[in-house]
Amino acid sequence: MDNIGVVFLSEVLGTAMLVLLGTGVVANVALAKNKGLGGGFLMVTFGWGFAVFAGVIVAYNSGAHLNPAVTLGLVASGATEFGSGVPVNFLSVVTYIAAQFLGAFIGAIICWVAYKQHFDAEPNSANKLGVFSTGPAIRSYGWNLTTEIIGTFVLVFVVLAFGGGRQGESGGLAALGALPVALLVIVIGTSLGGPTGYAINPARDLGPRIAHFVLPIKGKGPSDWAYSWVPVIGPVIGGVLAGWASLFLLPVLT
Amino acid sequence: MDNIGVVFLSEVLGTAMLVLLGTGVVANVALAKNKGLGGGFLMVTFGWGFAVFAGVIVAYNSGAHLNPAVTLGLVASGATEFGSGVPVNFLSVVTYIAAQFLGAFIGAIICWVAYKQHFDAEPNSANKLGVFSTGPAIRSYGWNLTTEIIGTFVLVFVVLAFGGGRQGESGGLAALGALPVALLVIVIGTSLGGPTGYAINPARDLGPRIAHFVLPIKGKGPSDWAYSWVPVIGPVIGGVLAGWASLFLLPVLT
Amino acid sequence: MDNIGVVFLSEVLGTAMLVLLGTGVVANVALAKNKGLGGGFLMVTFGWGFAVFAGVIVAYNSGAHLNPAVTLGLVASGATEFGSGVPVNFLSVVTYIAAQFLGAFIGAIICWVAYKQHFDAEPNSANKLGVFSTGPAIRSYGWNLTTEIIGTFVLVFVVLAFGGGRQGESGGLAALGALPVALLVIVIGTSLGGPTGYAINPARDLGPRIAHFVLPIKGKGPSDWAYSWVPVIGPVIGGVLAGWASLFLLPVLT
Amino acid sequence: MDNIGVVFLSEVLGTAMLVLLGTGVVANVALAKNKGLGGGFLMVTFGWGFAVFAGVIVAYNSGAHLNPAVTLGLVASGATEFGSGVPVNFLSVVTYIAAQFLGAFIGAIICWVAYKQHFDAEPNSANKLGVFSTGPAIRSYGWNLTTEIIGTFVLVFVVLAFGGGRQGESGGLAALGALPVALLVIVIGTSLGGPTGYAINPARDLGPRIAHFVLPIKGKGPSDWAYSWVPVIGPVIGGVLAGWASLFLLPVLT
Repeated sequence: MDNIGVVFLSEVLGTAMLVLLGTGVVANVALAKNKGLGGGFLMVTFGWGFAVFAGVIVAYNSGAHLNPAVTLGLVASGATEFGSGVPVNFLSVVTYIAAQFLGAFIGAIICWVAYKQHFDAEPNSANKLGVFSTGPAIRSYGWNLTTEIIGTFVLVFVVLAFGGGRQGESGGLAALGALPVALLVIVIGTSLGGPTGYAINPARDLGPRIAHFVLPIKGKGPSDWAYSWVPVIGPVIGGVLAGWASLFLLPVLT
Repeated sequence: MDNIGVVFLSEVLGTAMLVLLGTGVVANVALAKNKGLGGGFLMVTFGWGFAVFAGVIVAYNSGAHLNPAVTLGLVASGATEFGSGVPVNFLSVVTYIAAQFLGAFIGAIICWVAYKQHFDAEPNSANKLGVFSTGPAIRSYGWNLTTEIIGTFVLVFVVLAFGGGRQGESGGLAALGALPVALLVIVIGTSLGGPTGYAINPARDLGPRIAHFVLPIKGKGPSDWAYSWVPVIGPVIGGVLAGWASLFLLPVLT
Repeated sequence: MDNIGVVFLSEVLGTAMLVLLGTGVVANVALAKNKGLGGGFLMVTFGWGFAVFAGVIVAYNSGAHLNPAVTLGLVASGATEFGSGVPVNFLSVVTYIAAQFLGAFIGAIICWVAYKQHFDAEPNSANKLGVFSTGPAIRSYGWNLTTEIIGTFVLVFVVLAFGGGRQGESGGLAALGALPVALLVIVIGTSLGGPTGYAINPARDLGPRIAHFVLPIKGKGPSDWAYSWVPVIGPVIGGVLAGWASLFLLPVLT
Repeated sequence: MDNIGVVFLSEVLGTAMLVLLGTGVVANVALAKNKGLGGGFLMVTFGWGFAVFAGVIVAYNSGAHLNPAVTLGLVASGATEFGSGVPVNFLSVVTYIAAQFLGAFIGAIICWVAYKQHFDAEPNSANKLGVFSTGPAIRSYGWNLTTEIIGTFVLVFVVLAFGGGRQGESGGLAALGALPVALLVIVIGTSLGGPTGYAINPARDLGPRIAHFVLPIKGKGPSDWAYSWVPVIGPVIGGVLAGWASLFLLPVLT
């Protein structure tokens, strides 16, 4: 298979793994009769963080973006190739992003299958949507967008800093692979996840929202399309800003 | 001692360590008067995850399968040898699996000894069985089986991805040894453990269930044999499917 | 850019990242209507610990002090140069410390922006100040100062021990980079954070307190200037004592 | 300073660090008006685990036993030298153990100083003793002793397995230094800590109990000397048994 095909497969698999395990922890904490019901926000942040860990491992070959904000942030940072020697161009960018949305859609469906009885048993339709997609604690599109921009900026900027020469010099973080990104996603959750539930990834939010819309979920409510653009546009802006910032800051700092 | 004897001893020790520490955290959280009583699901997932960490360390020499689903997944993936140069054949597979069941049985007995006073003090017989074996939050054999298949697929597929050339190339995850598997087991717990308590290991569930059946536990109830096949068959199916999937996917992705 | 400029930029960025994510977790746990409301002290300690992790990564080039107590502790320990070959002198020390205060001030402002709606919704003004700066559980300046001295001594002494030849010899902790410091900050939180909320960093406390004072936060109360010197002087004393102690102890132990 | 003097200093420092941070997390969770009050058992296990992490780092040069059960387990395992080339003989064993008790005594005193106001504010004298020393959830000396033996066996056996050739071969766990021991202590806490609070270390328990006895703690109750032998004798038996077991098992498994 040529490189672009490998990238597609790798990103589908990795994002499906990420979203299965990420939406899964919300299902466990939020849906009726689960053993983890009421497990708390810290458990959610560890679940999403280590979901990233597992996703990065299976998508190692494509560089494990798993997130259009990361892909677009890399483009904005002036990268000339992605993982595995794939050049940055229109086709490769579209391939990465399409694979991420498809993977997120698939991961959400598998989560629904794994928790089928609990979706059926849960009386509150908002809790069901909450498994799939994020929603604001206080609805205010401008501020919600701002919070998503800040969270995604932190994600993409620090990820780009991992990739700089500095970590390679120390032989440290790069050698750890998936763990630093997992810890980073945990802290974005604990520290910037309060207002919007930290989508920080357009595919992670929109892919499952589409799954929520099309799946025959018992007693489901609306998919809240009015909010759906915030966790798409916010992360794109945050990722691109981080890419631009890294253009100027990382060469100085490295 | 020849290699197959080393494998047997190693898997008995490692699985006993895993199950002692894994069933131990449930005992701490669930049995009357314990200092960790009501410690929550996150504590259970960390306990099981780091139990795997300890088990992997002491069973390093046999490759630390500690789980028939991992052994059978490796067979399905077309592996020609297990850890320490032991060839894959009928005898070695039987040795691994027999050792895992024996180790799990022993580990559960030691847990009972460590928590003897708390088993005696606990009035609810279901809580006592819950220390030894998993049970469904909502009994529905087909869906419970499905959840176990999905959870075990994730476990075995990601473990096989660790073993691929990719991690070796990066010099990263392989060098960390037991830690990535521990984090993986934590996230399977947080994210797919809600409906069935994530057995994801036939030996981990059936070995302790037999221990529950034979031990003179004060005020114990039935061992729920009607459910006992689900956490055996589900993980076997999930592990074999992951092995087959890795056959096709990992060569492409590596 | 010359080295001293790089240090300034690096410390501003790293401390801003640290304080954004650190004050963020308190905002999430303490301000009305957040998804992490009531998430507990353990979540706060993980949030601050992994905030340090992220801050250290982006400030790798200046040695990631992010804390005047670390800078002054290094001076007291007789270090002749800081990270990146910058010599220890009056100018470099002032540069480090000024950058740390500026970064902390900026990080706190971004936190306020990210949680704007929740600051507005929170009725209790003490909770708002608590996001920015620490305060004592039982006000008693002498004892509060003592607790801050002890906590900062632990931080700086162990950080100096990382830097000793011993870790390099083992090829171990040094190679892990930001992780050991993160775990150290977590345990200082769990174990010495009860009485004063573990400032252990003058910039982390005073920078955000100034931000609290100048920002137009809705319904804010006083900035508690009467206490403000404790989390400045205590960490400075603790850091310098740790530097002196390392002068005598680390050569013997290394 | 000669080697035996370095060992003494190193073990005093490391055990003081361990016990300060370990007793500190209990103080935070259990004493009135602390910010971490009611933080739960999981927080206690992380606190003790990362306390070991910090203690191991500062006591790297003596091999960081920090625990007479580890020292005696190494003797029982047939080791001929400890860390830094110190030979195993009567003098060195006594030096290790004396240093550990002294360090634990000092660490507990510093904890009392750090939490002075909260010791004064706490009305329950049992909570005060609980900061210093362990006590049984259900008093039954034989079973309590058994639980301590099992917990310490796990600790020392797995620590000895770290030190075997296997980890060196993989270049993995040994290179991580203090982290694996920290995770091991966390899981012993979550999984075997329910009945007795997992002393698993004679110095950690008796040193602080003596501090409790001699310190002028406001409103303190008795130091429970009737139980005090259990967390001393149990860990010694468990450690020695683990040393003997490793004599036979580790050469086979390595």
